[in-house]
Amino acid sequence: MTYLKNAWYVACLTHQVRAGEMFHRTLLDEAVVFYRKQDGSPVALQDRCPHRFVPLHLGTIRGDQIECGYHGLRFDCSGACVKNPHGDGKIPAAAKVRAYPVEERHGMLWIWMGDAPADLALLPDYSVLDPSSGYLVSTGGYIHIKANYELMAENLLDLSHITYLHDGLLGSPEQVGADQVLTEDEGHIVCRRWMPGISVPGVFDMLYRRDQGLVDMWTEMRWMPPSCFLLDSGVHAVGATREDHGWYYGVHILTPETRYTTHYHFAAALPAGTRLTDAEAAKFAEMRRFAFEEQDKPILDAQQAALGETDFWAMKPVLLTIDAGPVRMRRAIERLIAAERQTAQPASVD
Amino acid sequence: MTYLKNAWYVACLTHQVRAGEMFHRTLLDEAVVFYRKQDGSPVALQDRCPHRFVPLHLGTIRGDQIECGYHGLRFDCSGACVKNPHGDGKIPAAAKVRAYPVEERHGMLWIWMGDAPADLALLPDYSVLDPSSGYLVSTGGYIHIKANYELMAENLLDLSHITYLHDGLLGSPEQVGADQVLTEDEGHIVCRRWMPGISVPGVFDMLYRRDQGLVDMWTEMRWMPPSCFLLDSGVHAVGATREDHGWYYGVHILTPETRYTTHYHFAAALPAGTRLTDAEAAKFAEMRRFAFEEQDKPILDAQQAALGETDFWAMKPVLLTIDAGPVRMRRAIERLIAAERQTAQPASVD
Amino acid sequence: MTYLKNAWYVACLTHQVRAGEMFHRTLLDEAVVFYRKQDGSPVALQDRCPHRFVPLHLGTIRGDQIECGYHGLRFDCSGACVKNPHGDGKIPAAAKVRAYPVEERHGMLWIWMGDAPADLALLPDYSVLDPSSGYLVSTGGYIHIKANYELMAENLLDLSHITYLHDGLLGSPEQVGADQVLTEDEGHIVCRRWMPGISVPGVFDMLYRRDQGLVDMWTEMRWMPPSCFLLDSGVHAVGATREDHGWYYGVHILTPETRYTTHYHFAAALPAGTRLTDAEAAKFAEMRRFAFEEQDKPILDAQQAALGETDFWAMKPVLLTIDAGPVRMRRAIERLIAAERQTAQPASVD
Repeated sequence: MTYLKNAWYVACLTHQVRAGEMFHRTLLDEAVVFYRKQDGSPVALQDRCPHRFVPLHLGTIRGDQIECGYHGLRFDCSGACVKNPHGDGKIPAAAKVRAYPVEERHGMLWIWMGDAPADLALLPDYSVLDPSSGYLVSTGGYIHIKANYELMAENLLDLSHITYLHDGLLGSPEQVGADQVLTEDEGHIVCRRWMPGISVPGVFDMLYRRDQGLVDMWTEMRWMPPSCFLLDSGVHAVGATREDHGWYYGVHILTPETRYTTHYHFAAALPAGTRLTDAEAAKFAEMRRFAFEEQDKPILDAQQAALGETDFWAMKPVLLTIDAGPVRMRRAIERLIAAERQTAQPASVD
Repeated sequence: MTYLKNAWYVACLTHQVRAGEMFHRTLLDEAVVFYRKQDGSPVALQDRCPHRFVPLHLGTIRGDQIECGYHGLRFDCSGACVKNPHGDGKIPAAAKVRAYPVEERHGMLWIWMGDAPADLALLPDYSVLDPSSGYLVSTGGYIHIKANYELMAENLLDLSHITYLHDGLLGSPEQVGADQVLTEDEGHIVCRRWMPGISVPGVFDMLYRRDQGLVDMWTEMRWMPPSCFLLDSGVHAVGATREDHGWYYGVHILTPETRYTTHYHFAAALPAGTRLTDAEAAKFAEMRRFAFEEQDKPILDAQQAALGETDFWAMKPVLLTIDAGPVRMRRAIERLIAAERQTAQPASVD
Repeated sequence: MTYLKNAWYVACLTHQVRAGEMFHRTLLDEAVVFYRKQDGSPVALQDRCPHRFVPLHLGTIRGDQIECGYHGLRFDCSGACVKNPHGDGKIPAAAKVRAYPVEERHGMLWIWMGDAPADLALLPDYSVLDPSSGYLVSTGGYIHIKANYELMAENLLDLSHITYLHDGLLGSPEQVGADQVLTEDEGHIVCRRWMPGISVPGVFDMLYRRDQGLVDMWTEMRWMPPSCFLLDSGVHAVGATREDHGWYYGVHILTPETRYTTHYHFAAALPAGTRLTDAEAAKFAEMRRFAFEEQDKPILDAQQAALGETDFWAMKPVLLTIDAGPVRMRRAIERLIAAERQTAQPASVD
């Protein structure tokens, strides 16, 4: 088991890396420290001084550089040691830390964890979160999941669980048994569910008020490897078209912290015409936070606790039709990781 | 190291499994969920959905069945999956959980952990706890011991420690050096101690008031494999017979939780003629709770901490005469486990 | 990785072992219990009864002996079991615990952890802490470091970090780049730094008031194997001699608790002529405690967390000129441990 390294992962929200302050987080088992240069651009470095292994975030920002808090070695944004204040001041060739490519986009700080050149074309498109998109962005959130990211990815790609785990909130009973249609689209896996004539789940009851009567509902979840998701979900009157509807884009982004823990960022974007009072917008955000933090997280944490350090497949999971998407995704991740290993340069340090 | 599986263990007290609620506990390293059918009879199932390993106790009771909280698979009392609400609804052959035989007796819920047919003849006789027995049942208790059950079993079978650990409460100084007589009785090991002419330990001072003067005291501890104990202990006037006495049956039952932790249930039954005010009955129960929870438990927990993950015999324990019972018991457990392995069907899933 | 065993280590301060009470601590991975005989002399025994592994500190002091709290075995100061109160009272030959040589000196209780005869000539000389020395002893302290003792020993032997980690307190900016001179002296390693014409660090500003102007400063740190340190550090007017100065001896003593944790005792002795008000003496002690506990300890703990269970050299640390002392010390410890192993008797139980 390892991770796909040559990929963009969300490290944190852009506002979490403030001018003059360091932010640190473990990503894919690597300790990383973030700070901003004087021009405001973000930097990500290995958070461990090569001299005596002290986390660099315990040190000090000096202009565009950071200085280790223990013996004062200084590193620039490329990770090179540029100052050894001791003795003759010579800088050993090995005195450097890894620098990671970073990119700020859609309110998030993305980091490229691999050795191959960072490829911006691979950065997932979450432009619905940008102010210029015209969408209403709902308050998002961050949840620390005590489970492997693939378990959480299964949760997102297979939404059949919303009837059970999120009943009345995101799901409703008549959704059960909905057909799901899987398609692949340039490396993405898309899972569509169409649920005609169902009672309105809580979250849509507010977005699309129908004091009585049934609706048609759809969910279309798109997996963008290795662990980014975009949901298109909504309802309209039975038999109507999308012209008259309540819907939103759900943003769900997973970053492995360790093999057994995951950083989970989520947000939502509602179309411009959506009419919500401030109280309703707050309730919409709270409904989603509740579903993810108080309903999904306990299930995920319990799954990992049951697995322990045992490999997923070694547990011989029973496979159902709803697992078609998750299994295809797991196989795609395996293929991507295997391909990455084959093309890695022999000299790679990874 | 493993456990004797084909045996009855106490899972919990019967009242802990309430109608309409699930109770869950780890027993012999296995996660088990308990609930009651609509007719009140108890059910014990493996507490892990075979689909995605979510504990079933996070789900919902549906009549006599339980429904997984994540994707709604339903299991009946035999552990068979009886409903897959998704897609074509087909139920894979592997979609089942283990069902454990259970039996309610003497106020406790017993569970049979092995693959051999459950044998009620092997259920230890604690009928002194039944209302029909006419005995007065003292408030019992439950203690979570952070030690292997065999360390706690040694504590119970060898009562020479009461002078030191429970001095003034269960023991008194003159008991030291009492002869102990070991006998075997159809697979049980019985350890008898006879302590003539001693001062009265606190617990008997109340049961058998003698404002002054010495008593004769006996303890007869019976081990019923793998980890159930019944104590017959009392005092009478020096040289008198059992007609004039204060005594009780002590019930001590151990269930391994993991290799390093134990569920410990205890109770006591006093003969019908025992005269105790309510306050005295409460004090009797509290004396015993104090002795087991605040005197025995710290010693047991410290023993396991000193052992760590090292095997008991690898520590080369010094053996004394008082260890004759404990050693004989450990050897008996080893023989029982070895015999169980030999007779196990090759197809056994254990 | 192991420890040098045939050496004196500080177990605790002498006042921590009080008459009639037991004190216990893990030293070099061994559980040790301390108590005082009736004549006041200290005893150190293995803190684990050989019968059932219960820590002896849970038992009772009986005159010059201690009695196990579980079954009453008694051990004398030599570690021999002298009483088995059970059955025929015979005492198995194996019924003994290890007794460690101890020595009270300089306010500390020293313990010899090896199998070779304890050699008082090897006890480090901290007589500056003795009342007879005429030195003013500053309030010392104890810190539990969550790091291997060699990481902490590097901190002490290489004081180049004081400019960065203790700036304004123990160090000042102009110290950077000071030459260090290493010498060896009968197995000791001495690291001298001479820092002429610098601004006064806080701790010396108080000891040697110069409201303005620069000083010459020296630090001379002596390592006495395996993990004792004595610092001679002070300042005087630029170009002056040691006649007019402010200085002190710093005492720093490390005792491994486990491979990853360390007992750290520190103190200081100021020359008789030092003029400090009570408030200043308290501030001097507090400055040092703050530097060691709130500046050094977080760095040390973070180093060990970054190392995890990986060997120091396997991390391929970048070596700077300031590491000459630490590296020489690490190599000396390796040689001493290797020599100890070679001379160990084959029959040694260690």
